Amino acid sequence: MASNADGKVRLLNPILAQESEDHLYHFGIIRSAVDLPKLFGDVKYVCCGGSAARLAKYAELFANEIGIDLGKNLSNSDRYIMYKTGPVLWINHGMGVPSLSIMLVETIKLLHYAGASNVTFFRLGTSGGLGVQPGTLVVSSGAINGELEEFHIQYVMGKRVKRPSILDQQLKEELYSLAKQINLPVEMGKTFCADDFYEGQARLDGAFCEYTKEDKFDFLDRLYKNGVRNIEMEATCFAAMLHRAGIRAAIVCVTMLNRMMGDQVDVEKSLYHDFETRPFKLIKSFIKQQMGLPINDK
Amino acid sequence: MASNADGKVRLLNPILAQESEDHLYHFGIIRSAVDLPKLFGDVKYVCCGGSAARLAKYAELFANEIGIDLGKNLSNSDRYIMYKTGPVLWINHGMGVPSLSIMLVETIKLLHYAGASNVTFFRLGTSGGLGVQPGTLVVSSGAINGELEEFHIQYVMGKRVKRPSILDQQLKEELYSLAKQINLPVEMGKTFCADDFYEGQARLDGAFCEYTKEDKFDFLDRLYKNGVRNIEMEATCFAAMLHRAGIRAAIVCVTMLNRMMGDQVDVEKSLYHDFETRPFKLIKSFIKQQMGLPINDK
Repeated sequence: MASNADGKVRLLNPILAQESEDHLYHFGIIRSAVDLPKLFGDVKYVCCGGSAARLAKYAELFANEIGIDLGKNLSNSDRYIMYKTGPVLWINHGMGVPSLSIMLVETIKLLHYAGASNVTFFRLGTSGGLGVQPGTLVVSSGAINGELEEFHIQYVMGKRVKRPSILDQQLKEELYSLAKQINLPVEMGKTFCADDFYEGQARLDGAFCEYTKEDKFDFLDRLYKNGVRNIEMEATCFAAMLHRAGIRAAIVCVTMLNRMMGDQVDVEKSLYHDFETRPFKLIKSFIKQQMGLPINDK
Repeated sequence: MASNADGKVRLLNPILAQESEDHLYHFGIIRSAVDLPKLFGDVKYVCCGGSAARLAKYAELFANEIGIDLGKNLSNSDRYIMYKTGPVLWINHGMGVPSLSIMLVETIKLLHYAGASNVTFFRLGTSGGLGVQPGTLVVSSGAINGELEEFHIQYVMGKRVKRPSILDQQLKEELYSLAKQINLPVEMGKTFCADDFYEGQARLDGAFCEYTKEDKFDFLDRLYKNGVRNIEMEATCFAAMLHRAGIRAAIVCVTMLNRMMGDQVDVEKSLYHDFETRPFKLIKSFIKQQMGLPINDK
């Protein structure tokens, strides 16, 4: 983990550090065209998740909570949305590690140019649960990849590179305790990060299936015994890239189903909306607490 | 490649084949709730690409070309958009292999349930060029992964599985010839599929960089000598999954920059829009030709 004494978001790229201009292509933001320190210098929290609509909704809910206007989408590209509510940025990252990685790289650069300091990233996601009731929040204690190792795998210059996917140990404990305190159903456990939704997660309902139902349950049991409590598609990269950047990070996902019971997500609509608001409820309470505000719902 | 004598889109999942219900979760489409054969049975072409806005624009342009109404977005989820114009489906797939893989699996299932036959998939993308002028179309002759092999890598039940990423050989020749015929700048070459936009593509402008400018150019030279003419983030999965399904597929991407000259995409706006319309111009001409329509612009 990069040392980071003054808490500033650093740029770990000595070549780019020589340049005065940059184009954050997937946000459509040109460094010199905007006053980044003025716009983003006070950011302390980045909240992200896959779906653009869900993240925009979270941003709106948070704006209401702290009594400010939502403002406009600050992303000028249709690749991601970005809202700012006080010290909190809300950005979606799409599905899967590659899409997330682009968002993280460009957000880290943005915050560095803005001179932001002591920033914490949260991933607020949906996931498949493993041996936990649907609707449970899983605070990730670690993130394991498709080979069941705690690494994010990159291919750089034709070579396989392994980056340790480590999450902040204190932050996860604080989130877990806070969830208990505000009566949200919560578990702590490892998160299995798959590169696809079907075969990579041992589902039986994809377009291809070359394994049996027994193979599936053997694999899910193996994950469970390994301490895994949920499955999604971004955790290793999220943990590894922010660890490498020296930025504090946590992952809180709600489980939409218990994979021990089935593969299809068939939650009734109003319950679905209740479930998908739970990671928000935890994280907004945490942030409000840090901001010195009462954490109860407004 | 799966044998496919009657041309029907097949389901290579004996377990799901026993089920009468399915929820295409990321399209928000429930099999039993819609008349899939009526709605999608006549689909012959699936055109996809990363950006939702771009694919919606393509769909609209094509509807105008063949003189029909665009109709509404058929996806009930914000994960992807889907439009149908006559025999052509237009769907975005987001960025990167994982997001693409979900879209492909659910589209293959949709077309299977609909009884669609003799379907061709096209990926119309943007990419970084290698030794070619910006604005050039690259028709992919093959797709190579981060280790420079012609495979899509999956992790299934904790094991690494390699799927050959093979594209239809005749289709690529036809597309290349047609591009020449209608005076679009075109090259044929291999496509390098990266799992991220920055380090995975040897860029010098990411948030992290542990290599030198010389390392970068050595790597790009190595790719070029290997026959690579462009770099994007979906080709291996697109080629491999459709090959495995026995479905004809081609990839046509426009290059937005020449990576031998720089890393940043800084194309002036109107030229950018011209460039991003080029894959569409080629594919709509091909489809109109197949439909027995004149291929000139309407």
